[in-house]
Amino acid sequence: MSETREQILEEIKNQGDLVRKLKAAKESKEKIDEELARLLALKARLGDESAPPQKFTLKTPKGTRDYAPQQMTLRQGVLDKIIGVFKKHGGEAIDTPVFELKEVLTGKYGEDSKLIYDLKDQGGEILSLRYDLTVPLARYLAMSKIASIKRYHIAKVYRRDNPSITRGRYREFYQCDFDIAGTYDLMLPDAECVKIVAEVLDTLEIGDYVIKLNHRQLLDGMFEACGVPADKFRAICSSVDKLDKSPWAEVRAEMIDEKGLDAAAADEIGKYVQLSGGIGLVDQLLVDEKLKKVQAAVKGLEGMQLLLKYCKAMGLEKSISFDLSLARGLDYYTGVIYECVLKAEPKLLQNGEAEEQGTVGSIAGGGRYDNLVGMFDPKGKQVPCVGVSIGVERIFSVLEAKYAAAGVKVRTNDVEVYVASAHKGLHEKRLSILNSLWDNGIKAEHSYKLNPKLLAQLQHCEENQIPLAVVFGDSELEKGIVKLREVTTRKEVDVPLADLANEITKRLNN
Amino acid sequence: MSETREQILEEIKNQGDLVRKLKAAKESKEKIDEELARLLALKARLGDESAPPQKFTLKTPKGTRDYAPQQMTLRQGVLDKIIGVFKKHGGEAIDTPVFELKEVLTGKYGEDSKLIYDLKDQGGEILSLRYDLTVPLARYLAMSKIASIKRYHIAKVYRRDNPSITRGRYREFYQCDFDIAGTYDLMLPDAECVKIVAEVLDTLEIGDYVIKLNHRQLLDGMFEACGVPADKFRAICSSVDKLDKSPWAEVRAEMIDEKGLDAAAADEIGKYVQLSGGIGLVDQLLVDEKLKKVQAAVKGLEGMQLLLKYCKAMGLEKSISFDLSLARGLDYYTGVIYECVLKAEPKLLQNGEAEEQGTVGSIAGGGRYDNLVGMFDPKGKQVPCVGVSIGVERIFSVLEAKYAAAGVKVRTNDVEVYVASAHKGLHEKRLSILNSLWDNGIKAEHSYKLNPKLLAQLQHCEENQIPLAVVFGDSELEKGIVKLREVTTRKEVDVPLADLANEITKRLNN
Repeated sequence: MSETREQILEEIKNQGDLVRKLKAAKESKEKIDEELARLLALKARLGDESAPPQKFTLKTPKGTRDYAPQQMTLRQGVLDKIIGVFKKHGGEAIDTPVFELKEVLTGKYGEDSKLIYDLKDQGGEILSLRYDLTVPLARYLAMSKIASIKRYHIAKVYRRDNPSITRGRYREFYQCDFDIAGTYDLMLPDAECVKIVAEVLDTLEIGDYVIKLNHRQLLDGMFEACGVPADKFRAICSSVDKLDKSPWAEVRAEMIDEKGLDAAAADEIGKYVQLSGGIGLVDQLLVDEKLKKVQAAVKGLEGMQLLLKYCKAMGLEKSISFDLSLARGLDYYTGVIYECVLKAEPKLLQNGEAEEQGTVGSIAGGGRYDNLVGMFDPKGKQVPCVGVSIGVERIFSVLEAKYAAAGVKVRTNDVEVYVASAHKGLHEKRLSILNSLWDNGIKAEHSYKLNPKLLAQLQHCEENQIPLAVVFGDSELEKGIVKLREVTTRKEVDVPLADLANEITKRLNN
Repeated sequence: MSETREQILEEIKNQGDLVRKLKAAKESKEKIDEELARLLALKARLGDESAPPQKFTLKTPKGTRDYAPQQMTLRQGVLDKIIGVFKKHGGEAIDTPVFELKEVLTGKYGEDSKLIYDLKDQGGEILSLRYDLTVPLARYLAMSKIASIKRYHIAKVYRRDNPSITRGRYREFYQCDFDIAGTYDLMLPDAECVKIVAEVLDTLEIGDYVIKLNHRQLLDGMFEACGVPADKFRAICSSVDKLDKSPWAEVRAEMIDEKGLDAAAADEIGKYVQLSGGIGLVDQLLVDEKLKKVQAAVKGLEGMQLLLKYCKAMGLEKSISFDLSLARGLDYYTGVIYECVLKAEPKLLQNGEAEEQGTVGSIAGGGRYDNLVGMFDPKGKQVPCVGVSIGVERIFSVLEAKYAAAGVKVRTNDVEVYVASAHKGLHEKRLSILNSLWDNGIKAEHSYKLNPKLLAQLQHCEENQIPLAVVFGDSELEKGIVKLREVTTRKEVDVPLADLANEITKRLNN
């Protein structure tokens, strides 16, 4: 339904008033720019004559960013390491479209569904951008009738959040998922996912971490034991999920005031969610008077027992913590849930003592979701799944800050040889020399000027850390040679033009 | 503006009528499914109670597809080769967000602008999915004040086209772009882009190709010489662009009937656009009575002369063709334009003679666009650019068909060792053996069953082309050894458990 010109004019008027109001109220530049962009967009819809040409804020959309070559180099290095770990565990890659039919996403994300980006209805199907890679995986498995796979998927996902960009959170961000689908024995794939998270973080060397573990069945059992009505389980669960950011008092208030829970039930929950530990805590809870009467709690605890045993067999004992406050926001989890947090560097306090280690937020998470594929299968056929998602954006941010602090400067291209001419009129000869190098697989470049200064060409090599330069003029060409120069030492040797590619290849392989 | 429940109910009624009408008319399943999906989406908007649970067609959005591991392996192989070529020419990677402010894309794509995907206005900025990688590059250069770069960018772009999926065209598809930005001497970067296209296609070995070259200034000059009014240049240019798919008679009719061109002018154009050739054709046109009087035409021809000379210096003479029918649809080109087409395999006719070679469509294209960055710079500062885009989706399709015909089966994972247990009760021991392999960088997996049959485990290795298997039972463990089995030959040797990782690494490196 397209609006009439009058409707648009009305909207322009209202939007103009809003912008003026924000300016008068001295609102933040970001907020004003955003509303201004809306105003200009509205004007643009009236057609070219009335819209000022290209007078919009030059920016990427809110919550997104460009990656410059420096960042891409860092990012590709991180992703290569992560892919290396995924492949070590037999992972296969898949990819799915960036958008899905809207209904595919409906009812999968609980309270977070409001963060889904919808596409405009331009006729045809109603589409939304993917919110994660898990629901598309489930849709893919059901649609392709795949009963088992170990797949990894690295791709961007979209959330209309109000992101804290300083903490490495964006509206467009990469996810990096490994999932194991198939009907298997209890906790064997689940434990391998924990191992994968630990391997990824060890490989990346970004600092100390802890992988928190919990179990949705245990949470549900605990809610039941504390007197939460069954229809409030998911809502209370998403309150518990806020414990990593908010103190218990706030979460308790939300449970009571917003979710309508009895204060007594909330207080019971409060006792449990303080608990964390290892296999000893499982044993303790298995004899807990309240929990041992609730089947779901016992099942969850038995699962945790097995998981912790398998983690121990894989040398993970010191990296994990069974933590009853871990809840995870998404609706679809049915079993074990994971969350990995980086420990903050201990800060020295003014009195010289080290402050207690805090955490800088989640950098990986996941869990088991046994019912999601069945939601897509026409006959409801289930494919049990468990998986983890590596928060690579957070990892990029941490590493970028680290490199910046250490003054590390990464090369952003791989050029091995620069072809430089000593005087003018040699550009075609440069092309034919370059051509012979390229045809021999050598990474090479030259100036795109007809007659560049020799000094400028050599400076380019030094500034860009290019190891070798070919330098020639007419006097060399007459002898059928060129000079091959080592850029750092500035040593030059004569090389017959016919041997050039071979000689360079030999040097690069040393 | 959200609709009222009554409006939605009204839409549901209308949509329901449409679906019934289509069914009655026995329309294609695809069309009916699409409208049915719309109907179900509308119903979903009424809230859960009235929408049937998950009763929608299980599909990816129109014009999109999933990539299975087999396809991903092929794709990654292709992309790695292309990236190799880009890096050989000093390319650096960048990435930009999948969506841009709508105004960034406005006015850049001429007639094709209608194919842009818009996001729904959910409050905040008005966004569109990127249509190509060129406009985002220009926005990035202007925003980051970058005056020169050789960048490559491999990412998905979005066009609401009616794609012919059998020919490898989609609504979501990868583009693979290399662009050179900066103020340089005429045709030096432009010629290198042609070289890059040739290297990519040579490396991929997908068959014979020809790179067509033309020049926008020559086209404009030719239009002027033929009597086309200046305000019709772009419209007539996009008619010429259709010559690769439609015969001249149709294009001529479009020029006259739809674009309002004089028949005489169209006929003049018709004479030129039949021409193609090499440096000789340039020389011939430079003395053409009509063209030599038009400055733009002469400039374009002089550019072509230089380009063809440089191409020759890089050994490209046989791969290129100066083709006056080449126009390219996009508005932003200002200089040289390229298009690379694959030649079809010659078919044997019934009389035993080979049919003349046709082409199977464009697999790369690009050109020079000197004014695009200036459209984004607040002061209109220009950064001249030239670039090429490799049509990787088409290349994937061609290669997939080739591999399928040849019966090639690609391994989709890299597992080197399978850890198998000979009897039950050994799963924790499997985990600790796996752990030692993983910690030594060995790609290894096992069954996620507690007690898998030995035969099933060994079959898994053979089916998945895993080269080595570790096999053990209690009798081996008592001796501190395991059996290391070569899967293809089925030869087994005893290896002390302590030496296992070393022994495997040694074998894999041989």
